[in-house]
Amino acid sequence: MTKQELFEIIKRKKSFLCIGLDTDITKIPQHLLKTDDPVFEFNKQIIDSTIDITVAYKPNLAFYESMGLQGWASLEKTINYLNKFKSEVFTIADAKRGDIGNTSKQYAKAFFDILDFDAVTVAPYMGEDSVSPFLSFNGKWVILLALTSNKGASDFQFIKNEKNSKMFFEEVLIKSREWGTPENMMYVVGATQAEMLQDIRKIVPENFLLVPGVGAQGGSLEEVAKYGLNNQCGLIVNSSRGIIYASSQQDFAEKAREKALELQLQMEKILGEQDKRYPYGLPLVES
Amino acid sequence: MTKQELFEIIKRKKSFLCIGLDTDITKIPQHLLKTDDPVFEFNKQIIDSTIDITVAYKPNLAFYESMGLQGWASLEKTINYLNKFKSEVFTIADAKRGDIGNTSKQYAKAFFDILDFDAVTVAPYMGEDSVSPFLSFNGKWVILLALTSNKGASDFQFIKNEKNSKMFFEEVLIKSREWGTPENMMYVVGATQAEMLQDIRKIVPENFLLVPGVGAQGGSLEEVAKYGLNNQCGLIVNSSRGIIYASSQQDFAEKAREKALELQLQMEKILGEQDKRYPYGLPLVES
Repeated sequence: MTKQELFEIIKRKKSFLCIGLDTDITKIPQHLLKTDDPVFEFNKQIIDSTIDITVAYKPNLAFYESMGLQGWASLEKTINYLNKFKSEVFTIADAKRGDIGNTSKQYAKAFFDILDFDAVTVAPYMGEDSVSPFLSFNGKWVILLALTSNKGASDFQFIKNEKNSKMFFEEVLIKSREWGTPENMMYVVGATQAEMLQDIRKIVPENFLLVPGVGAQGGSLEEVAKYGLNNQCGLIVNSSRGIIYASSQQDFAEKAREKALELQLQMEKILGEQDKRYPYGLPLVES
Repeated sequence: MTKQELFEIIKRKKSFLCIGLDTDITKIPQHLLKTDDPVFEFNKQIIDSTIDITVAYKPNLAFYESMGLQGWASLEKTINYLNKFKSEVFTIADAKRGDIGNTSKQYAKAFFDILDFDAVTVAPYMGEDSVSPFLSFNGKWVILLALTSNKGASDFQFIKNEKNSKMFFEEVLIKSREWGTPENMMYVVGATQAEMLQDIRKIVPENFLLVPGVGAQGGSLEEVAKYGLNNQCGLIVNSSRGIIYASSQQDFAEKAREKALELQLQMEKILGEQDKRYPYGLPLVES
């Protein structure tokens, strides 16, 4: 999927919502456990009830791997189902992979060739040759970890470079601009660090940012939008637990839609205001 | 497995060799393609022909994921086979995982509960809560990426902290000592950076180091041993392609053994000399 195509979906759905399919078999409604593949059945019903207001779906690999072979099968079914709506949704394998070049190529094959996701999250620690193999797939995306939403983010990501006083996550943004373009590279920036989005936008004005941490982790959508929007929206905001576990009863899909709709309506308002202030096409950064 | 048990295996086998099972179906001997599960069959024959001189086996997850569901099945069979020799080998899932706490816990479950590996490699970028869930499993190990063997290692790992001039990989070593102990934490240190082992040993004198990069990537075993050995060996040196693809014919397992034996004999010599210089039990670091 191209950047322009993604932006068209955002405009059409008036939404920049991503739903995280962090599906934990111990948390899904009891009645699903009788089905052949409870995890896929859960995902399918969540997708069906939210797809008209949701731009992206993001299964986190950990939840599938923790169920072994059966989990991998549920993941395959989920992405195959999502790929029936190929021009309507952007799909993200939240895998946080990264290895030496030879090996990253295999991961890229796994997520882009075999599973046919649009994007995969990648960890930057091992540098260029761990990231670039993912960038050679036409129409596919790397979403590089920059500033994460968790407590441990402060352990290393804020360390300042002796040479230029840039923080480590800023070095990741700066350096990685040489590896990819806004057409194949996005960044993870946690909503819990919204105030930092202003500076981040100076480094990567055109790239999409995948923003986790709204909801369960305490980030604010308004803050994220205030500092993070650009003239092609430029944001994909993820919510996982807050949506998919809104109810543990028969009505889980309906309740998930209600929660998703709350966010989508806020997003619609934000996009409308943004549209008035900067009709699409204006320069990306205010001078 | 405890650190002492690992050391006992090293002494018994006179080896600190790890074989990387980076099994690529396009590179294995043709005749295996007729079997039900060529990747498992390949791994099994490699294991059978080398287990008496090999301390650890390390499948890299990327090679299995790139084959989808079938790959995951081959991985399960491989670890189940290795677990028949539980007190004889140390098993490493080379997965380079790491996510927010809630999610890392699922990865830990995948590799320690479901697959029952002894150790998993973990990426440090997201900090403490991305690593600590792996450390709460009794007898299991985290192998944290510190200084990797690839070209991209120099993109971020050598950036110096403005506060103390420590390099980023040193910060990883220093900080992570608060999270784990030499009884449940090892570090990846590439053989291509052998001269840096001297300083690394000052920071983590007692921890085992997993050293990739000997062989295909150009690292020297002598150099690694010179700077990296401690009084419980403290090293696991990995070779993958140099061993498992020594021949692409019927004799692949035999040729793999020959290559493994070359390394094991060097290791036996090194361990013998080390034993003479510092009989086991002496202080870890020379003052």
